[in-house]
Amino acid sequence: MVEVAIMGFGVVGSGVAEVLTSHQESIARRAKQEIHIKYILDIRDFADSPYASKFTKSFETILNDPEIKVVAEVIGGLNPSYDYVKQLLQNGKSVVTSNKELVAQKGAELLKIAQDNNVNFLFEASVGGGIPIIRPMNQCLAANDVIEIAGILNGTTNFILTKMIREQMTFDDALSMAQRLGYAERNPAADIEGLDACRKICILASLAYGRHVYPDQVHTQGITNITLEDVAYAEDWGGVIKLIGQAKKLENGQIQVVVAPMFVGRESQLAGVDDVFNAILVRGDATGDVVFYGKGAGKLPTASAVVADIIDCVKHTEKRIYLYWADAQEGYVSDYEESVIPVYMRATAPGMDDETAVGIADELFGGVRRLYRDNAPREEIAFVTKELPLREIKRLRDELEHRGVSVISMVRISDLT
Amino acid sequence: MVEVAIMGFGVVGSGVAEVLTSHQESIARRAKQEIHIKYILDIRDFADSPYASKFTKSFETILNDPEIKVVAEVIGGLNPSYDYVKQLLQNGKSVVTSNKELVAQKGAELLKIAQDNNVNFLFEASVGGGIPIIRPMNQCLAANDVIEIAGILNGTTNFILTKMIREQMTFDDALSMAQRLGYAERNPAADIEGLDACRKICILASLAYGRHVYPDQVHTQGITNITLEDVAYAEDWGGVIKLIGQAKKLENGQIQVVVAPMFVGRESQLAGVDDVFNAILVRGDATGDVVFYGKGAGKLPTASAVVADIIDCVKHTEKRIYLYWADAQEGYVSDYEESVIPVYMRATAPGMDDETAVGIADELFGGVRRLYRDNAPREEIAFVTKELPLREIKRLRDELEHRGVSVISMVRISDLT
Repeated sequence: MVEVAIMGFGVVGSGVAEVLTSHQESIARRAKQEIHIKYILDIRDFADSPYASKFTKSFETILNDPEIKVVAEVIGGLNPSYDYVKQLLQNGKSVVTSNKELVAQKGAELLKIAQDNNVNFLFEASVGGGIPIIRPMNQCLAANDVIEIAGILNGTTNFILTKMIREQMTFDDALSMAQRLGYAERNPAADIEGLDACRKICILASLAYGRHVYPDQVHTQGITNITLEDVAYAEDWGGVIKLIGQAKKLENGQIQVVVAPMFVGRESQLAGVDDVFNAILVRGDATGDVVFYGKGAGKLPTASAVVADIIDCVKHTEKRIYLYWADAQEGYVSDYEESVIPVYMRATAPGMDDETAVGIADELFGGVRRLYRDNAPREEIAFVTKELPLREIKRLRDELEHRGVSVISMVRISDLT
Repeated sequence: MVEVAIMGFGVVGSGVAEVLTSHQESIARRAKQEIHIKYILDIRDFADSPYASKFTKSFETILNDPEIKVVAEVIGGLNPSYDYVKQLLQNGKSVVTSNKELVAQKGAELLKIAQDNNVNFLFEASVGGGIPIIRPMNQCLAANDVIEIAGILNGTTNFILTKMIREQMTFDDALSMAQRLGYAERNPAADIEGLDACRKICILASLAYGRHVYPDQVHTQGITNITLEDVAYAEDWGGVIKLIGQAKKLENGQIQVVVAPMFVGRESQLAGVDDVFNAILVRGDATGDVVFYGKGAGKLPTASAVVADIIDCVKHTEKRIYLYWADAQEGYVSDYEESVIPVYMRATAPGMDDETAVGIADELFGGVRRLYRDNAPREEIAFVTKELPLREIKRLRDELEHRGVSVISMVRISDLT
């Protein structure tokens, strides 16, 4: 029998306790021994909980109990999680976590500490909730160079965009609905500004390319500026707008990482991923495209991924699972303005004929493809540029504005097929 | 350094050699030691191959070389693979294979021999080629009861159906095209009759539910009877026809396994899986639906999955990876005629008014939903029944024929959402 502890008894923590209890037998069979919850750490009281006797408010109790071999950190956030996890690893205990902020900010350091102490630090649940992605990427794709990773990594924003696309709901209405349904938090900033997706693509890129990518190295744009007009133009273009987290290896050895709304062609596997679902596409040089799809969040999906990690730690108490990446390096992540892409622009040219406005854009960008939508005001134009360095596109946009055509929105065109 | 052998230098075998060579460094990093190909077994000569010095025609050389720790069996078929693999495992060597026939027919026995000899028998590549499915199912879903597995498990048939659906190509034309493009073999029976998909669902069901399911226990129907008329009616119903392999746990402890063409609703994640792509949906009680998607075959995808297994064996030479299921048991797989489903029927009623014919169907089946297509001959009707035990549906179909309405085709309606 192995004794484990759960730190944090919120949504995920209570789910972990539930899954460990309800699947006790099959878990014991797979872990080759029984897994027993000895402590649950929480500052709150849960007198009526079936686990009441296991609660402790003292982190030290867990840290100093030599019987505890594996700890699940499901408190979330950096404080006190980071400090706790570090101490636990240094004390020879394996740690599993669903905490994407912790892994995205401190992954390299914690993996190093785990390595130095011959214990495991696993985080399957930190990306994609119940969708297995970290483990398949680490193991099955061992024989591949990862050319690209691209994913719909945030369920809340995908739900909002789906409502905008399918039901012509405005952004604000869709956000309210997401909040009502419990898909978005009262303060939705981390989701709608792209930070949550950014943390996840950082973790995936770090794993795939072996070097830590920190969230502040990644150009991150949310979906708050996307309007129904943009959705309509995307449709005319032949696709939908999705919030995409993308990481690519460049020929010069740098990697390109970005989180931004993008036009995604209808034929892409990611275009049909709707509502709160997540999907992660991994393009390997040998496997080709592999896509992992499922609900990226939720109590039981996330908890079951945490439990799978616990089982793996229990099976490998004497042995490390190879999961490691080096710390960040200056100049490793390319400047996002150097990426060469086409973009969509919607603009307004008051007092100007729309043909004239498009003519100016066409001249400046060396040819554009005009897009149309129903009921567009007379002075509105929309178009897609050719592939150009983003820096150049921005310069030309300023030029365009100088000549009386003011750009209201600008969205990347993805190359996802 | 670990010495390995490859048995069979066909498409997959040469791919394995290629991946092991081209990714040598990253593989060594992950396996924690270098992997070196010592032998390649093939009855043919490959004098010009870069691996020429490694070829042997003698299985015994591999079997009796104590340096060889891991062998990749990529010969295919049961003979001599089964005999070879058995001897290797008994001789203390781990074996990895892409051979679905071998695993579907002999999996339980070989897993038992591997267990008795404290070695590993892995077969990630046997289902879904390069799509990681065996390992995620075994590990990540450890904390789940698998409620259902359903998949598009055969790329050839999916390609043919896609051509029929999207381009109104006839079955014969689409098959010829698949053969021309190298997606279908000269003798396409194993694909189009559903046997290939059957072997794969057997492997998945065995793994998910812990007891071997043999192909001859599974009701298997191919796609040779599907016509463009059926495709058109499926569209009117609201979906597409896909060849689905499905396994479900029943409340009485039995499992239901079937391979058959099915109507799949447009909203299902499987409906949009086109061309040679495969997708496997796993419904867990905790994770909910998780879908794995990618090309299910091909030289390098399959080879990279074989190599991932080799790496895993190398990492676990002193330790077994838990992958095991018991042998079959009588009465464990339910009689397929007991499944309760709606079905689609297309019928012709010569000399009868179509309203009259539908009326008879309506009366017999206790209500049917009529389907329509353009340019249907006057005496053709099509409809979908209510949910009924398949045995009862067949009885009623006979009754229908008795009353002058002869059924031309009958396709299951899936409950995939």
